[in-house]
Amino acid sequence: MREVAVIGVGLTKVGHLFSESLRSLFSRAIRGALEDAGNPKIEALYVGNMSAGQFNNQENIAALLSDFAGLNGIPATRIEEGCGSGAAAIYNGYKAVASGVHDFVVVGGVEKMMDTTANDATSIISTVTDQEYEAFLGLSLVGINAMVMRLYMNTFNVDREPFAKFSVQMHENASKNPYAQFPFKISLDKAMNSNPVADPIHLMDCAPLGDGAAALVLCPKEYAKDFTSKPVEIIGAGHGMDNFIFHTRDDFLSLKAIRDAAREAYRMAGITPDEVDVVELHDAFSITAFLSIEDLGFVEKGAAGQLVDEGLIGLDGTLSVNPSGGLKARGHPIGATGVYQMAEIVLQLRGEAGARQVPGAEIGLTNNISGFGASSYVHILRV
Amino acid sequence: MREVAVIGVGLTKVGHLFSESLRSLFSRAIRGALEDAGNPKIEALYVGNMSAGQFNNQENIAALLSDFAGLNGIPATRIEEGCGSGAAAIYNGYKAVASGVHDFVVVGGVEKMMDTTANDATSIISTVTDQEYEAFLGLSLVGINAMVMRLYMNTFNVDREPFAKFSVQMHENASKNPYAQFPFKISLDKAMNSNPVADPIHLMDCAPLGDGAAALVLCPKEYAKDFTSKPVEIIGAGHGMDNFIFHTRDDFLSLKAIRDAAREAYRMAGITPDEVDVVELHDAFSITAFLSIEDLGFVEKGAAGQLVDEGLIGLDGTLSVNPSGGLKARGHPIGATGVYQMAEIVLQLRGEAGARQVPGAEIGLTNNISGFGASSYVHILRV
Repeated sequence: MREVAVIGVGLTKVGHLFSESLRSLFSRAIRGALEDAGNPKIEALYVGNMSAGQFNNQENIAALLSDFAGLNGIPATRIEEGCGSGAAAIYNGYKAVASGVHDFVVVGGVEKMMDTTANDATSIISTVTDQEYEAFLGLSLVGINAMVMRLYMNTFNVDREPFAKFSVQMHENASKNPYAQFPFKISLDKAMNSNPVADPIHLMDCAPLGDGAAALVLCPKEYAKDFTSKPVEIIGAGHGMDNFIFHTRDDFLSLKAIRDAAREAYRMAGITPDEVDVVELHDAFSITAFLSIEDLGFVEKGAAGQLVDEGLIGLDGTLSVNPSGGLKARGHPIGATGVYQMAEIVLQLRGEAGARQVPGAEIGLTNNISGFGASSYVHILRV
Repeated sequence: MREVAVIGVGLTKVGHLFSESLRSLFSRAIRGALEDAGNPKIEALYVGNMSAGQFNNQENIAALLSDFAGLNGIPATRIEEGCGSGAAAIYNGYKAVASGVHDFVVVGGVEKMMDTTANDATSIISTVTDQEYEAFLGLSLVGINAMVMRLYMNTFNVDREPFAKFSVQMHENASKNPYAQFPFKISLDKAMNSNPVADPIHLMDCAPLGDGAAALVLCPKEYAKDFTSKPVEIIGAGHGMDNFIFHTRDDFLSLKAIRDAAREAYRMAGITPDEVDVVELHDAFSITAFLSIEDLGFVEKGAAGQLVDEGLIGLDGTLSVNPSGGLKARGHPIGATGVYQMAEIVLQLRGEAGARQVPGAEIGLTNNISGFGASSYVHILRV
């Protein structure tokens, strides 16, 4: 297997982009990434998207999007893996380059969610959980997260405040990110007293609905220097999976898919968690962020809140978490999220993250999950 | 790149399978393929499915289906490419083995269409065409096919009879196929006088709606002999693409995506069209079959009807077309169709196709398309 580098990044601001379409968003991100990479000749396209079928009544989107992005003719593959679609597309694009199938590929993630009502969007998002054993019975994704958050709070004797502080930090970071959906700060009081959604989850614990697209250009590391002065190498790629139905799992407070993906990625990269400078993880809800921080091996189980409390996840903390603002405040255009995560890490490792730059970041990690951790991908990058 | 062989095949009968679910169908096909292959240790799963989101309100299906098929833990990738989803999944699985990423992979295609009404299913199928430039204006997939069939009839001075004869042949073949949705013969009179759907397309020119799943086990050719006495090698794999919006294409009577995919596959296989003994092609409508026969290089443009008229596409013809009964009569569970096609060719080349066996078949070809030829995959197999 060959070493693989990211040589181009493109992304759109996340938001309720009513003047943009699925294809216009995607094309914008792809053109951005190609320009950033110095316009190499692209051999294949991988598209991460959760549900253009349900959100936009549009399937067959790899062929459509490649045509509109000016890439007609090359193999174009649309990959769906719920909320993890973006990272799944990266994982497949990475393997294609590493194995020698292709030299230059572009991976794009896109989701155009705001063509539907918020009500419909919530139903559509619940289709990443099991329709026969979970959603059919009224258990939505926020419902699963709420039960786990309650169990976590009881088990580890933690109240809502560290969760609320996490969201405050995400908005603090997003206020410095020009691509963020919510580029403004919120107070701890606002986070604590926002409307309850599914107790103990309040509105400020939840990632919002939004439209967006992001893209990356990958190529063999040996060619990267011809296209950029700052190639960022993918030094680890791991995949994990768990029982699909949540209530059949052994442990409700740990996501096995993340643990397995992280173990594989750390081993491949030859590093330990404490060597990671900056991480973009999947804070669909603040409880998901806490489980991720722990299952990625950064702290012991139950100790994520303490890390937040001590102010250690900020841009100058011991572990900078989601400098982009994360799913909470950068936004969560579902199938694009995994690609946004890696785009952010690439900008951080290049030192091009502007006001939200993590000082001296050299090793970064991304973690994107599907459903409530049915599957997970971890990628580790180094400049 | 390594040589790749198919060592296992599994498939379900196609039909309105109201007692089966998406996961039960898929698991059945996967278990069949694994048993047929002698239960090798599988390293990755590729799932071809068009729209479980719209048909079954279920996304994130690779994780779900791998769990229920007993394959939890390995990388599982769901690939969507409209009606070509099955072949797209094969193409990706094939590349993974050829390039050395994995040794043993299973590719499964599944579509559970009959959980919705026929009306809804027709709308969902139209989401493979462009929602902004085609479907939104009332132009459905059958509408595009009808306009092309009319143009074809006028251009080449052909009437409806050769098209109807094609469908009669498909039912003749299906009557010998235990997996077929419609395992019975129809008369030419019935085909000619079935209800018009979108003039000049009549009901008997159309593939039906149906549920089904099919699966294949792939591995490097060098390992195949340890698992089967009759490995079938994939000697050619080609991909092609066209303008997504039909009315922007240069030629309305030829599908560039098929021509390009076929050229690539023939070149890789080192054969010419006349060396192909048996083909499974994409007869979503009888006009699509005619265009495919021509664009795959078997006859000149406009001459497909003559081939049918002269009785040359039957099981003992010069070019046996769709011994399975094709999309028309074997059935067209959309995301599974490309996998059904290759499963049929494997059975034919092994000499295990029973009453529908093409005598002495040694080289077979599959062609699956998305939309009205927005993209296309051609695979060539040899025993």
